[in-house]
Parts: sequence; structure tokens; C-alpha cells
Amino acid sequence: MAKEIKELTNAEDNYSQWYNDLVMKADLAENSAVRGCMVIKPYGYAIWEKMQAQLDKMFKDTGHMNAYFPLFIPKSYLSKEADHVEGFAKECAVVTHYRLKNSPDGKGVVVDPNAKLEEELIVRPTSETIIWSTYKNWIQSYRDLPILVNQWANVVRWEMRTRLFLRTAEFLWQEGHTAHATQEEAMDEAVKMLNVYSEFAEKFMALPVVKGIKSANERFAGALETFCIEAMMQDGKALQAGTSHFLGQNFAKAFDVQFVNKDNKMDYVWATSWGVSTRLMGALIMAHSDNNGLVLPPKLAPIQVVIVPIYKNQEQLSKIADKIEHLLQKLKTENISVKFDDSDNKKPGWKFAEYELKGVPVRLAIGNRDLENGTVEIMRRDTLTKQTVSFDGIDEYIIALLDEIQDNIYKKALDFRKGITREVNSYEEFKQEIEKGGFLSAHWDGTPETEEKIKAETKATIRCIPLDRKEEKGVCIVSGKPSEGRVLFARSY
Amino acid sequence: MAKEIKELTNAEDNYSQWYNDLVMKADLAENSAVRGCMVIKPYGYAIWEKMQAQLDKMFKDTGHMNAYFPLFIPKSYLSKEADHVEGFAKECAVVTHYRLKNSPDGKGVVVDPNAKLEEELIVRPTSETIIWSTYKNWIQSYRDLPILVNQWANVVRWEMRTRLFLRTAEFLWQEGHTAHATQEEAMDEAVKMLNVYSEFAEKFMALPVVKGIKSANERFAGALETFCIEAMMQDGKALQAGTSHFLGQNFAKAFDVQFVNKDNKMDYVWATSWGVSTRLMGALIMAHSDNNGLVLPPKLAPIQVVIVPIYKNQEQLSKIADKIEHLLQKLKTENISVKFDDSDNKKPGWKFAEYELKGVPVRLAIGNRDLENGTVEIMRRDTLTKQTVSFDGIDEYIIALLDEIQDNIYKKALDFRKGITREVNSYEEFKQEIEKGGFLSAHWDGTPETEEKIKAETKATIRCIPLDRKEEKGVCIVSGKPSEGRVLFARSY
Repeated sequence: MAKEIKELTNAEDNYSQWYNDLVMKADLAENSAVRGCMVIKPYGYAIWEKMQAQLDKMFKDTGHMNAYFPLFIPKSYLSKEADHVEGFAKECAVVTHYRLKNSPDGKGVVVDPNAKLEEELIVRPTSETIIWSTYKNWIQSYRDLPILVNQWANVVRWEMRTRLFLRTAEFLWQEGHTAHATQEEAMDEAVKMLNVYSEFAEKFMALPVVKGIKSANERFAGALETFCIEAMMQDGKALQAGTSHFLGQNFAKAFDVQFVNKDNKMDYVWATSWGVSTRLMGALIMAHSDNNGLVLPPKLAPIQVVIVPIYKNQEQLSKIADKIEHLLQKLKTENISVKFDDSDNKKPGWKFAEYELKGVPVRLAIGNRDLENGTVEIMRRDTLTKQTVSFDGIDEYIIALLDEIQDNIYKKALDFRKGITREVNSYEEFKQEIEKGGFLSAHWDGTPETEEKIKAETKATIRCIPLDRKEEKGVCIVSGKPSEGRVLFARSY
Repeated sequence: MAKEIKELTNAEDNYSQWYNDLVMKADLAENSAVRGCMVIKPYGYAIWEKMQAQLDKMFKDTGHMNAYFPLFIPKSYLSKEADHVEGFAKECAVVTHYRLKNSPDGKGVVVDPNAKLEEELIVRPTSETIIWSTYKNWIQSYRDLPILVNQWANVVRWEMRTRLFLRTAEFLWQEGHTAHATQEEAMDEAVKMLNVYSEFAEKFMALPVVKGIKSANERFAGALETFCIEAMMQDGKALQAGTSHFLGQNFAKAFDVQFVNKDNKMDYVWATSWGVSTRLMGALIMAHSDNNGLVLPPKLAPIQVVIVPIYKNQEQLSKIADKIEHLLQKLKTENISVKFDDSDNKKPGWKFAEYELKGVPVRLAIGNRDLENGTVEIMRRDTLTKQTVSFDGIDEYIIALLDEIQDNIYKKALDFRKGITREVNSYEEFKQEIEKGGFLSAHWDGTPETEEKIKAETKATIRCIPLDRKEEKGVCIVSGKPSEGRVLFARSY
């Protein structure tokens, strides 16, 4: 697809512009003709597919099955859970009619006023309501529980300010919706899925995350407790990468979903929901990439290894192709995605820049002299370092290198986060330090008022109350009131 | 999930009711609270996932990549291609507003009249228009071609009469949209994808299909040629199982997508689109199932083998579990999905009926006497026949049996179709025979008028002009005018 390879904006000069440039130039996504809706291009979608495949496996390994629920939600359903409606029933796409007709002036089509819906339909911003209205018919007894269901779907939230992947009107996600006989089991499920998310982020995205609990202000609309994973981007802003909600009996009560429990008594069903979205693409890009382009962890890279032949004529190219044929087969057998780019309408230098931009973890270049010497030049994308290595045993070398790159990208992000996470002990210090970005760990009195004051004055929010925070009583940096422990603040996406 | 196992309606008594009963009782899908929209339940979705995985592999093996385009289409886009708007711009979901607000009477939410969209958005009924408006920016030169893209998505067509899987307002599908430099290449692509669909239908769904061309009346709105695969259901009605369209330059012209060709001249881009949907689930169900429930081809069955222990006490169960442990491992290694149902709250007879209903291809029952004799009882779902076989070598036996069942289901469907496909040579004969169902192969003069007359008088349509029809000139059974060859008529879903 048409695209000029131009210099990216430097991240140091304008991080936001660097991000937009990168998403566009690396062929990940672009804005569409529909306000706030993006087109996910094939290369970007290939990364998302790798994420999906791994997450889907992890959901199934933890006992979940996929299902599919309607795109539309009757307007009245959104009002059934009091908090939920406040959170979700406002900025959304409303279907009011079901037919168009030819325009009387003969130009195009117009909405047929006779085809007005009796009740408007809302394009789902999230599916708790339509799903719990369905679960009502699925659950009579504790024998019907638990229900462990996930859905891969598109959702729409009419955001006013959108950014590719990070905040779009339509986005792709998965939403798990589970139903349980007891509070304890539902709470265990919410925590289990939080752990699935953090494992996915750390092992596959190479993205270190803090597991924590949201403050009441930041809780999902309708949840009793929201667990989250929070990641740190290279510009010092935090990004919420996934949430898992303990919904209590709120939705069961809203939709009257009762069951006969083991003691033969009627009770309301306990619920969780949990989700990650194409927002993870934004996190992946911003956590690792550099001024040369994308840096992809090998486990999510659509192309893990690219081989670029350096040749003057067809005979040299044939020799190179012969030389690497066995290697190509070997890597494919090991499920390593490898591309031999022998296209002759682009120069090697152009290819090098292109695959750096695309974040291909390992690049091999092989020319005439390499053939004579039995060597190959290897460039690793994470460090941009080159090395000439022997062709003997090159397959094992590459396999080990991919693992090393995966680990190194993670470690680099972890080191960055550690370096930019600081404890602060006064509001003055907080206000100074927040300008430098990163996570600030500070005591807070636990009230929404203090949290709102800090947000209004510094644009920082409580990202989470870390699950593993140390026991340390203190006093709130703003109110001076007692604090049960430090919480993590940051400016965020 | 709660469900009583009751007798299905007999297919012979009421085929339509049998189908609805089966879809509901086998936990495949159900109607939702939103008119015309279905809930695809976990077991139904698991079959769809198997279809998706195989199709996706076949699309990628033929060089396609996935991408994602917006759910919404600006109203004006639908009018840009003259035929397309007639076909798709009528019965569709129209988004007119982007915000709700609290109702003044304090009860729920109402549409905010201040949040009216300047231009209405249509929930995509198909994506040619939004995709070709995007391709315009991707294509400048022949070097940017071909574009071989597929999308897995939900679409909405406001159908007045809906049936689970067969015709729903929202359905899931894939839509391929390709762009080519030449007419020939686009035509080759359309035919290639028709062949992918027929291979998928026959080898995986065990569904014999006729490959053909649609008459002008039945052509996709905006296509120059529509290829299709047509299948025969057990009630003698045909079902269109997939279509592949040669779109010519229609959409390129509508969205002004021009490119510089190899001769350095500007030309419009050539297009195809092709799709199959959750409708295939309806075809799968209706082609093979019986009065005991689903019959699933092993290649698409979520559970391929179920093992039901027959035991009186825990000790016997333990012995059975020990005995089959190795078999379970062996089958899993061979990527065969096997379930050992040792649940103790259901009797074996209940389980037998349940797995028959769910279409599990192979059922093993193993009891105390089997342990003593070194045997196991095997029931195959397609023929409902039981056999007692030696436990030695049971894994190879099962693997071979699954293949045999796959072949047998296909052969049975093929024999049925052959038996119900007849040549007719007069309109009188046609009118009599069409009442018995099946495909009628008859001469037709090639005019829409004759086709419409036949449809009005007999409810039969031309399903396709078979690609492999024999050369046989004749006279139209209705008009007596010359005919170039026989076409296939049927009543259809």
C-alpha cells in the first residue's frame, strides 16, 4: 500500500506527533471518513490477531467459552442499573430508524420518517445489560452456575476527542461476563482474570504492569470493585491496560436474575466482567518504540525475522536463496514467522529502514562476501546493534536471540518504570514531581474529595491502589488526615 | 445452562419447527430481546469458531490479510453506486443521534435532541462503500496492487421476517474486498474464492454444493457477476451458502479510485468482494441433522469424542478413569477434542441423549463388564449404530472412524441431492415437480421476465447457472424461446 518512508517526528520533540506518525507510517491504522472511527490496517490487525489468539487461549485454559450477544441494546435496559446508566448512557450512538427511502428530490436517500423505532436502540458501549437480561433465562439453579462466557466484539462510545487505538468511538475488545453462586467465587474470578491480564501484558507484550484496585471515583459504572493493570508509557504518562470488575449482585438485581442455591433458597446471582481492547495496541506502541519506528516483542510480531539479500545480479541472488532455503524451512518448523524479501524494486537500504519502522525483531542481511565467509549479518531491532555471525547453527542462534529480545524489551520497560516511580511525601513535592511524569506513590486519605482536588490542580489521578503495596500508615499529602497506605498517582491516557 | 431435554418435533411432521427446536435445545442460539437479533450461545459459537479458524487459514493460504473497517457508513456513501443503493440502502439501522440525557420526568433516559448528527450514519449492511472510500488513499500505482483484504465483522440488515442463523437482522460474517490492476486478475480472484468456499463446504461442512453463476435478478447489488455455491437441505429447499462477486470497476468509479498502470496510464481499479456468514450454521444444521438432534461432521464438532463411564460406585469409576487415561492423552495429542463425562448428577441414559442432541460424532461407553472383557461400546452419531470393540488399538480405531463419519455424512448428503435433482422439460412438469422440492434442471430463455413469472407462479427461483453444466441447447420451458443450456431452479431459504 502506498506510503512514503519519511522521517518520523522525534519522540523527544513531540511525543504525541511521534505516536501519530508512527501509527500511520508503520501501516497500523488510520482515521476513517467516519468521525472517531479508525481503519485498522492489515499490519496493525496482524498484531491484534496475535494478541487475540493468545488471550483467547488463556481464557479457554481458565474454563471460559466464547459467545455472541446483540450489537443493540434497548434504551430502557441502560437505565436499569442506577450507576451504570450514569456511566454509559450518555455519549452513545442511538439508532432511531430502520429504513431509508429515495429522496423526493431524486438526490440520494433520506431517513424514512415512517420507519421510526418504538424504542430507540443503543449501539452497545458495553454489554452487561443485554447479557444479564439473557442470563435471566439461563439460570434457575446453582447447577446452572457458574457461567463463564467471553465475547469478542466491537463497541461504540461517542468520544469527543479521539486518538488512534487509544480512544476511538468504535473499538474492538473482548468482554468476559461471568455468573456465580457465591460472592467469594465471583471475587476469585475477578482476581483470576486480572492475573490473566497481567501475565499476558508482561509475558507477551513485554509490558510491566502494576496490579491494583481503582478508587471509587475511577470504578466501572455498576461495579463494587474494579481491579486494573496500569502501565507506564515512555513519556511518563500512565495507561490503564485492562480492567476486571466485581459487580456484586447489582446486575442480577437490575434484571431480576435469581437462582435456587444449595440450601434451596432463592438468591441473586453474583457477577464479574472484564475486558481489554485495541487500546492495548496503543500501549504496545508507546511502551517500546523509538525514533526509528516500532519495537515489537517477538511474541507479538507478525514477522519475527526478515532476511534481506544483498546482490548485484540474479546469479548472486540464486546462490543466496539456495543458501538460506534450509534455514527458512527450519524456522517455519519452529513456528517462527520469517520473510525472505527478495523483491527487486527496492534497495536494501530502503528495506532496512522499512523493517525497522515495522518493528521486525531480527533482521538478517546476507551478501556475496557472507557466502564466501560462511557468515551472515544480524541486526536486532531492540538495540539496533549489528553483528556478523557464523552461518553454522544460525537457526539456534536466532531462536535464542528472539527470547533474549523478548526479555530485554521487558527489562528495559521495567527499568524505565522503576526509575520513574517515586515516593513523594508532601503536596508541594507532588506538584513539582508530577510535571516530570511517572508514577508518584503518595499517601491519600481515601476520600473522593481529596482525589478530585488533586486531579483539578495537577491533572493527576489515582491510577490504582497497588495490590502488593507495603504496609505503611501515614498522613495524606493534601489533607493531613490518616492514610492506610500509599497509592499510585499519575497523569494518564 | 438450564434446558430440559424434551422430544424434538419430528422433522417429517414440521420441518420448520424441528429446526427451531433443534437450534434452541442443542444450545446453539436463541432470540434476544432485540427484534431480529440472536444470541449465539457458547456451543453454537464453538462450531462457528471452528468454521472461522478453517476459513481464515484458507484465506491466508491464498494470500489475504485481515483488517478492520468502521461499523458505520455515512448515509451519502450508500448512494454513490447506483445499483448498490437500491439493494442495500433501504432496510437498515440508522444512527441519528449521539447522546442520551436524563428524562425530564426522572424516569430513565431520552434521546438528546441537541445531539443530532449532521449526516446520519448507517450500520453497515456490507462494507464496499466504506472500504472503497478508504482504498482511494491506498492506491496510486499498479505497485500498490493487488490489495487482498478480508474482514471478520458483524453487519445489520433490517429483515422483517427473521429465523435463527438463516436470516437475522444482525449477523456475523467475513467479507473479502480485493483490488486489482486488471479485469482478468479480478475475475480470477472471484473464481478462486468461490473455489475456496466450495472446498470448505464440501471438505469441512460435509456439504455438497453446486458452483454457479447467479442470474441478473439474483446478482449482488453493484456486481457485474455473482458466483455462488448452492446447497440442498433435507426438506428439498435450496440454500445459498456463499457468494463471490466480480464488481468490475463500479466501486472504483463511484469512489474515484484510479491508479497509474504499467503503461503509465490512469485507469480505474478492478474489484471483487466475497462473503460467508453465520447462515452457514443454518446450512450445517439442516443438511445433516435428524430427529435425535444435531449431526455434526467431525471436522467442525467442538467435541469429537465423548466417553461416558457406566459405574455403580466410586471404585468402578476410578478403574474406568485409570483405564482410559492413556486414551485421553493419545487423542489429545492427535488434536482430537475428547470429553470424559464423569459428572455424577446425570444418568448415562441422560448423557447419551444429550450428546446425541449435541451431535457428538463418536460416543464411547465403558462399564465394569467392558473392563473385564477389554472392550468398549462405540456409537457413531451419523448412523446411530453401536458396536463393541476391543480396547486394544482403540485410538487408531477412533481416528479412522472420525474420517469415515466425515466421508459418510458428505456422501449421504450428496446422494440425497443427486436423488432430488431432476431434469424437467415442460412447465407443466416443472409445476408438479417443484411441489416435491429439490433442484429442477430446466431450459430457460435467459430473460428476467421469464424468471419473474416462474417465481411468481411457483415460488421457485434460479439458484444458479452451474459452472459445469453440460452443453445442451434447448427451448425455454415457459416461453419456448431458445435456451443456451439448463439452469437450476428451486425454492429456497
